[in-house]
Amino acid sequence: MTDTDLSKTQTPAMRGFAGAVAALRAGVDTPRAYLERCIEAIETWEPRIGAFVATNFDGARAAADRSTARWKSGAPLSALDGMPVGIKDIMETADMPTEQGSPLFAGWRGGRDGAAVAALRGAGAVIVGKTVTTEFAATEPRGTCNPWDISRTPGGSSSGSAAAVSAGLVPVALGTQVIGSILRPASFCGVYGYKPSVGGINRGGSFDGFSQSCTGVLAATLEDTWITARVIAARAGGDAGSPGISGPLEPPPAKTPRRLALLETAGWSTASDEAIGALRQALDRLKAAGIEIVDKDSDEAVAAAEAAIADAVAISRAINAWESRWPLNTYARDMDRTKLSAGMLERLETAEKMDQEEYAGLLERRRSVRETYARLAADCDACITLSASGPAPVGLQSTGNPAFAIPSSLLGTPALTMPLLKAEGLPLGLQMIGFADRDAALFAAAAACEGTLRAGK
Amino acid sequence: MTDTDLSKTQTPAMRGFAGAVAALRAGVDTPRAYLERCIEAIETWEPRIGAFVATNFDGARAAADRSTARWKSGAPLSALDGMPVGIKDIMETADMPTEQGSPLFAGWRGGRDGAAVAALRGAGAVIVGKTVTTEFAATEPRGTCNPWDISRTPGGSSSGSAAAVSAGLVPVALGTQVIGSILRPASFCGVYGYKPSVGGINRGGSFDGFSQSCTGVLAATLEDTWITARVIAARAGGDAGSPGISGPLEPPPAKTPRRLALLETAGWSTASDEAIGALRQALDRLKAAGIEIVDKDSDEAVAAAEAAIADAVAISRAINAWESRWPLNTYARDMDRTKLSAGMLERLETAEKMDQEEYAGLLERRRSVRETYARLAADCDACITLSASGPAPVGLQSTGNPAFAIPSSLLGTPALTMPLLKAEGLPLGLQMIGFADRDAALFAAAAACEGTLRAGK
Repeated sequence: MTDTDLSKTQTPAMRGFAGAVAALRAGVDTPRAYLERCIEAIETWEPRIGAFVATNFDGARAAADRSTARWKSGAPLSALDGMPVGIKDIMETADMPTEQGSPLFAGWRGGRDGAAVAALRGAGAVIVGKTVTTEFAATEPRGTCNPWDISRTPGGSSSGSAAAVSAGLVPVALGTQVIGSILRPASFCGVYGYKPSVGGINRGGSFDGFSQSCTGVLAATLEDTWITARVIAARAGGDAGSPGISGPLEPPPAKTPRRLALLETAGWSTASDEAIGALRQALDRLKAAGIEIVDKDSDEAVAAAEAAIADAVAISRAINAWESRWPLNTYARDMDRTKLSAGMLERLETAEKMDQEEYAGLLERRRSVRETYARLAADCDACITLSASGPAPVGLQSTGNPAFAIPSSLLGTPALTMPLLKAEGLPLGLQMIGFADRDAALFAAAAACEGTLRAGK
Repeated sequence: MTDTDLSKTQTPAMRGFAGAVAALRAGVDTPRAYLERCIEAIETWEPRIGAFVATNFDGARAAADRSTARWKSGAPLSALDGMPVGIKDIMETADMPTEQGSPLFAGWRGGRDGAAVAALRGAGAVIVGKTVTTEFAATEPRGTCNPWDISRTPGGSSSGSAAAVSAGLVPVALGTQVIGSILRPASFCGVYGYKPSVGGINRGGSFDGFSQSCTGVLAATLEDTWITARVIAARAGGDAGSPGISGPLEPPPAKTPRRLALLETAGWSTASDEAIGALRQALDRLKAAGIEIVDKDSDEAVAAAEAAIADAVAISRAINAWESRWPLNTYARDMDRTKLSAGMLERLETAEKMDQEEYAGLLERRRSVRETYARLAADCDACITLSASGPAPVGLQSTGNPAFAIPSSLLGTPALTMPLLKAEGLPLGLQMIGFADRDAALFAAAAACEGTLRAGK
C-alpha cells in the first residue's frame, strides 16, 4: 500500500473511492481495509491539522464490516457502499454530537441523522466523523490547519471537510455553502468542491436554513464528487419543494463545451498576478482544444452578468443577516450570550436593525441578478474563473477572501472547483459555474475541461 | 369579572385580547390580571379537555408582570404586549419541552425558541404553555377533547390550540397546517383559524418542514388573528427566502368584496345537508348585501379551479409522504421504531417506495394547479366555502375529514375560517380563501363578510 508513505512524507495525498471500486468488486480490497487506511491517515494527520471534532471509529468499523459482507456477496447498496465520509459538524448525526462550531452546542445530541447523512448510510457509506466547521458555518475559525502548510488557513466554513479530504483522511466529506464555504476551502486545500443548485440536496437536519445555502460535497475526484451528491439526492431528494439534483447516477460523460464565459467577478482586483496567470494559461489550453472563451469585453451578456454580480458580497451578507435574526435572537437571550463570538453578536445587531421591507427588496434584487445571469445560458455552456484570489493565505484567524466563491451562492447555480491550478507552489482551484438545475451539464463540461488540462501534464 | 361564570356553566367562551387593550391602556385591567383569568380557566377546563402538554405559569406570570410594568409606563412593545398565547407543541420553546406529539420526543428540549415564539416574546406576548398536537402534526390523535362536547374530536393536528382558544384558556394559539391542521380544528372548535400564504411566517425551530406547510394562528377574534400573525411576521419574517406576510400592523379595514367564488371542493359530497344549508343561508345574506356569488356552473374560471383542486387530498398526501421520508427513516432506524404509530410506519413505507421523479411530477402538478387557481383572481376577490363537512364528529380516534381544509394547503394561498355557521347546534366554520401573498386583502374581505353576517344576528 502506498498510503504508508503518507505518514513519512507528510505530503497531502488525496484518496479517491470510485477508483477503488473495481478492487472491492474483485475482492482484492475491502471496505474495512479501505477504512483502516483512512484511520491510519487520521491518526497521522489529525494531531497536526485538527480536521475532526468527533470520530466514531467503532461505528465506522462495524459499518465497513457490513459493507465488506455486501461486496463479498456481490450486493453493494450503491456505488458508494463502503465509502468513508466526513460530515460537516453543522449536520445532525445519530451517533455523534452536533456542535455547529459553537460552545453553545458543546456535546449537543439530537439523536437522529440529517437527511443527507441518513441517505449516505442508506447507500452503505461509512460515516467516520464530524468535521470542523467555523461557528455556525460562518466566519469564526476553529483551529483547523491547511495540510499543505499548517501555518495557513484551510478556508472556511467547511474547514475540516476540506482538510480531511486533502490529506486523504476520507475520500469524501459533506460541506455547506451560503457565501463561499465549499468552494473556498476546497480551493485552498486542493480538493474538488461542488455546491449544487440551491435546493439540490435535502438540508433536513442541517442547522443551515439560509435561503441561498446548500449542502454540497468535497472530494478527492470529480467522479466521487458527482456520485456522492447524486446518490444522496436520489435517496433524500432536494429541499422540501425541490426535486433535487437529477441526472445519471454515474458521472455524466465528458462533453466539450462550445463556449465558456470568463467571469472575472468582484474578486478579480484582489487576485494575485500569479493566480491570474495560472488561469490564463489554463484558458489558453482550453482555447487550443477548440473551446471559445468569451468575456465582458467581447460579449454583452457576460458584461451584464458581471455587473449583476458585482455586489454579490454585500447582497448576500445582508440577506444572511436578516435570515440570522432567528436563531441568534433566542441564542443571545435564552441560551448563553457570552458563548457567541463578537462577529455573531454584530450580525445579530445588524439583523435587529433591518426590517421586512428591506429584506423584501434584497430578495427582489437577488431575483433580478439571477434573471440577468440566466440569460448567459443562451450563448454559453458554463462560466469559468478562479475559485479564490490566490492560494490559502498565511494565518488561522481568517478563513480568507470569498469574493470568487460567492457569485454562485447568490445566483443559486451549481458551481465546481477543481484543483487544477497552482500558485506559490500551493493548490488553487479552477472554478466552473453552471446554470440552475443543470448540474449534470456542468459536470459534463467540467469533465471535458479537466481532461484537457490534465492531458498536457 | 364575567369569567367566573365559565366554571359554572362549562360552556365554551372565547376570550379576545385586542378588545382588552383599551382597559390595559387605561390601567383598569393588567396583563397579570388577564393572565390569572386564563389560568383560572385552564384549571377549570384542562382536566376535561386536555389542551396542553406543558404549561409554565411561573414564567408566564413573570412575563405578565413585566408587561404590566410596560403598560403602566405607557410603553408596550406591540399591540399584543401581555397577550397570553399557547404554542403548538411542534415548535421549540426555550422554557418547555417540545414533544411533537410523539413518545420518541418525550421530554425533549432544544433550549431555544422557534422563530415565531421568539418573535412573540420579543413583542411582549406571554407564552403560557404548549398545546397538544397529533403525532408529528399528522393524524394520530393525543386525547384532546372538543370543549363543545367532550365526546367529539377537536380536530387536528392543532388540536390543543383550537380547544384552548375555544374555551377561553388563551385568546390566541399558534398552529401549523400542511393538510387541514388549522382550518379543521378551528371549525370544529368554533374559533378563528388562519393559514397564511405559504412561507408567510418563519418556520425556524418548528418541526414542520413540508413544502406546503405553514405556521398560522387560531384566535378568539378576527382582529387578534391578524394582529398576531402580522406582528410575528414583522419580527421574524417569512420562511427563509420569503418576505413574509405584509400589510398594516393593525387589522385591514373591512372592504366589501365585489364578487366571491363559491368553491364546492371535493368535500361537497361529504357535507351534511344542514352544513350546506347553513352555507347557503350565509351566501344569500352576502348576496343581499350586494356581493355577487359565482360558482362552477356560472363561471368557467371557477369550474377550472374546482377541477384543478379535485385531487388535492391525493396530491398533498403523496407530496407529504416523500417529504416525510426523512426524518421518518432515521427515527425508525436510529431512534425507537416501536414508538412510531402504525400510520407513521405506513407513511414511511409509502415514502420508501417513491422516487425523485415521482416527486418531481407531483411538484409540477401542484405548480399547474396553483396556476389555474390564480386565474380566478382576475374576476373574484376571494373564494368562499365551508371549512368542514359538518360539525366535529363524535369520537376521539379520528381528527375528521380534511376535504374542505386542504385546497388552500395545496394552493399555498391564505385561508381563513370564521365561526359564523352552526350545524347540530355546534360550531361550523365559514371559509374564505384568498390569493397567494395577498393575505391582507383576504382579511379586508373577511371583515366585511363577517360584519354582514353578524349584523343580522
